[in-house]
Amino acid sequence: MAVGETHFPAMPRIEGLRLGAAMSGIKTAHRRDLVVIEVPEGAAVSGTFTRNAFCAAPVTVAREHLAACATRGTAPRYLVINTGNANAGTGETGLRDARATCTELAGLVDVEATSVLPFSTGVIGETLPMERLLAGLPEALRALDDGPAGWAAAGEGILTTDTRPKGASVTLPLGDETITINGISKGSGMIKPNMATMLGFVATDAAIAPAVLDEVLRGAVDQSFNCITVDGDTSTNDACMLIATGRGAAVNDEHRLAVFREGLQRVMNELAQAIVRDGEGATKFVTLQVDGAVTRDEALDVAFTVAHSPLVKTALAASDANWGRILAAVGRAPVADFDVSRVTIDLGGVRLVEQGGCAPGYTEEAGSEVMAQEEIGIRIDLGRGDRGATVWTTDLTREYVAINADYRS
Amino acid sequence: MAVGETHFPAMPRIEGLRLGAAMSGIKTAHRRDLVVIEVPEGAAVSGTFTRNAFCAAPVTVAREHLAACATRGTAPRYLVINTGNANAGTGETGLRDARATCTELAGLVDVEATSVLPFSTGVIGETLPMERLLAGLPEALRALDDGPAGWAAAGEGILTTDTRPKGASVTLPLGDETITINGISKGSGMIKPNMATMLGFVATDAAIAPAVLDEVLRGAVDQSFNCITVDGDTSTNDACMLIATGRGAAVNDEHRLAVFREGLQRVMNELAQAIVRDGEGATKFVTLQVDGAVTRDEALDVAFTVAHSPLVKTALAASDANWGRILAAVGRAPVADFDVSRVTIDLGGVRLVEQGGCAPGYTEEAGSEVMAQEEIGIRIDLGRGDRGATVWTTDLTREYVAINADYRS
Repeated sequence: MAVGETHFPAMPRIEGLRLGAAMSGIKTAHRRDLVVIEVPEGAAVSGTFTRNAFCAAPVTVAREHLAACATRGTAPRYLVINTGNANAGTGETGLRDARATCTELAGLVDVEATSVLPFSTGVIGETLPMERLLAGLPEALRALDDGPAGWAAAGEGILTTDTRPKGASVTLPLGDETITINGISKGSGMIKPNMATMLGFVATDAAIAPAVLDEVLRGAVDQSFNCITVDGDTSTNDACMLIATGRGAAVNDEHRLAVFREGLQRVMNELAQAIVRDGEGATKFVTLQVDGAVTRDEALDVAFTVAHSPLVKTALAASDANWGRILAAVGRAPVADFDVSRVTIDLGGVRLVEQGGCAPGYTEEAGSEVMAQEEIGIRIDLGRGDRGATVWTTDLTREYVAINADYRS
Repeated sequence: MAVGETHFPAMPRIEGLRLGAAMSGIKTAHRRDLVVIEVPEGAAVSGTFTRNAFCAAPVTVAREHLAACATRGTAPRYLVINTGNANAGTGETGLRDARATCTELAGLVDVEATSVLPFSTGVIGETLPMERLLAGLPEALRALDDGPAGWAAAGEGILTTDTRPKGASVTLPLGDETITINGISKGSGMIKPNMATMLGFVATDAAIAPAVLDEVLRGAVDQSFNCITVDGDTSTNDACMLIATGRGAAVNDEHRLAVFREGLQRVMNELAQAIVRDGEGATKFVTLQVDGAVTRDEALDVAFTVAHSPLVKTALAASDANWGRILAAVGRAPVADFDVSRVTIDLGGVRLVEQGGCAPGYTEEAGSEVMAQEEIGIRIDLGRGDRGATVWTTDLTREYVAINADYRS
C-alpha cells in the first residue's frame, strides 16, 4: 500500500557523477541490490548519520572514511550501497566486512580505500554474504551511467520494503547559469530519522565550499528527513549524503546560497515525504503543523506526540474524525505549564477544538469529510508563542502489523 | 482477546465500606455503568490523577473536592463513577455536569457536595446524558453492599473495552490483628498512565494517617500503574484512589508501614498487570526489566522506548525473536554517552545480545521457543550503573488496530 500516485522523474545529467547497479543476490535473486555512485574529483561531499547508539558497521566506517578524506583535503570518490542486509548488530565481523567492501572497490578503481563510503540497509543482525557482494562490484562498475538510466537503476537498487522508488529533481537559475539538484531516497518502516533519513543521496553540479555544504545539508535535513515518522523507530543505518560536483555554477554569495538552500529543501522535502507516502501499510498522508509554541523543539514535541499516538493513527486509518484522541495526545505532550484552554485544533479547514473542548459549530459531518481524504492536514495552535514546526506522518493500519509481523527486518 | 486466564476474587468485607452499581443506560442498555462507593466516616482517602494537560472535568472536580475535604479536616464520603462517557473535552458544560452529579448524590445521602468525588471513563468529547445518569443514582444507592457482591458489581460497573473485570485482594497480619486490602481497576486501551492508572479503587480497613497514606499511594502507583503501557497513550481520565477506613489495625510504626506497603504493592501490581493482560488485542504479556542504569529514570526511558516500539511489539505478536528490533529500540533511547558494547539483552533465559551484536551461541531455535510463550521476560542490562526498573506491556496485533479503528473511544 502507499498513498497517492507518484512517478520517478527523468533525472537530468550531473556531469561527472555516475551511478550503476548490479544484481548480486544478497537476499533474493534477480533484483538490483548493489549500487555504486562515482563522484568526480574536486567534488565536496557532506553526510549526516543516525543517532541510534547501536549504529550499523557501515555508518561507523563511512564516518571514519569521511573524516580521513577531510584530513587529506579531498572528498570521497565512491559510495557503495547494498540492500537486503543492514550489516547492523554484527559486531567486529560487520566492521571488517564494511572495510573489506571499500578495499575491494578501491582496488578495482584505483583509489584509496578511505575514498569509498559504505552504506547498507535491510535485515539487522545477519552478516553480509561477502562473496556474492564483492562479486557484484564489477557489474555495478560496468553499469555506471551519468544519465537518467543511472539514477533510475540506483533509485531502485537501494529499496527494501518500499513499494516504489523515490526521486526528486530541481533545476534552478543561478546568475546567468542553472544548477541541478537530484536526489533519491529509500525507506518505508523503522522510520523516525534522527539527523538523517533511512538512506538519501542528493547530488548537485553546483560549486559550494565543503564547510558551507555541511551546514546547508544539516539545515535541510532538520526540516525534511528529521520531520517525518512512520512508526517512531529510528533505524541503525540512517544516512543522508549530499554531493556537490563543483563543475557548475558557484554558490558564492548570500543570494545564491539562499537560492540553493530553497532548491535543496524542495528536493529533500519531496524525498522525505515520498518515504511517508510509501510508509508500511499507509493509506493516509498526514501533515501535522504545530504553531504558537515557545520554541521549535516544543512544537516538534507536540507534533511527534500526536504523530506517534497509536490511537490517533488508528482513527486516521478508520477516517474517524475522533478529535478526542488528538486532544488527549496533545495533552500528554511534554509541555511545561500548559494552558490547554488556549489550544486550537483544526482538521483541514474545520475547527475541532477550542477553549478546552469541542469547538462550537463543529459537526461530525464536516470532520468526516476531511478525514475521508487521502491527504490530511492537522493544525494545532498552542497559543503560547510564535514558533512552529511541521511533521509528516501516516496512519496505522492492519497492514502495517501484517507487514511487520511477517517480514523479518 | 486477553492474555491468560484470570478470575475476579471473592473480596473480603471491609467494614463500613459499601459498593453499589446500577444500569443507567449511559451508552448502552442492560449493563452496569454507574457505581457508587460509600466511604465510612473517619476514613482517610488519597488520590492520584492523570498528568494529561487536557484532563477531564471529573478529574478537575475530584481534585477540588479532595482539597475542600482536606481543608475541613475530613475525607470524602462518596465516590461516583460512570462508564460509557469520559466527560472529557467537554469544557464548561462538563464541569457543570460533574458538579451536578455530586450535588445530586449529596442531596440523596445528606452530605456536602464536596464530600462526593466524581469519576468518568469512556468516549471523549460527548456531554454526559445527565437525566439518565442522575436517575440511576437511587438504584446504585439501594444496591450498596459491603460484601463480595458489592465489589463484584463495582468491578464490572467501571469497565469499558475491557474483556473482564479486574480485582485483587490481600489479607496480612499486622501485630496481633489482620488487615485487608481490596482493589478493582479498569483499562485496556489508551494505557500509559502517568501518576495513576485509568481507574483504580483500592480500600483497606487499616488505620493510617492521611499524610502517610498519600505518600504510600504515590510510591505504590509509581511502581505499578506508572510502569504499564499498552499503547503509550496517556488518558485524560486516569485516577487511582486509596481509601483507609481506619476501623482495623493501626499502621503506626515503621515495621507495620513496611508490611502495609508490601501488601499494597502486591494488590496494585496485580491490578496494573491485569490491565496489561487485558490490553486491546493483546496476545502476550511482556515484562521488560532494565538494569545497570545510572538512574531509575534512565532505566524507565529505555524500558518505555522498547515497550512503545511498534516494530518490537509486532515482532512479539508474530512470536519472532527479532533481537535486531530490540537492539535498535534500545539504541534510540534517550541515554547520554551510551556505550552499547556494554549492553546485554536476554530473552527469558536466552542471551540475545552482547558486545554490540548477536551473542555467541545464540540460536534462532532457542529464541523462538521463548517467544512462543504467552508470558515473555526481556532483560536489558545497560552495564553503566546499578539502578533498574520494570515495565509491563503487550504486543501489537491486527486486533488492536481493528478495535481502535472500529470503536469510537
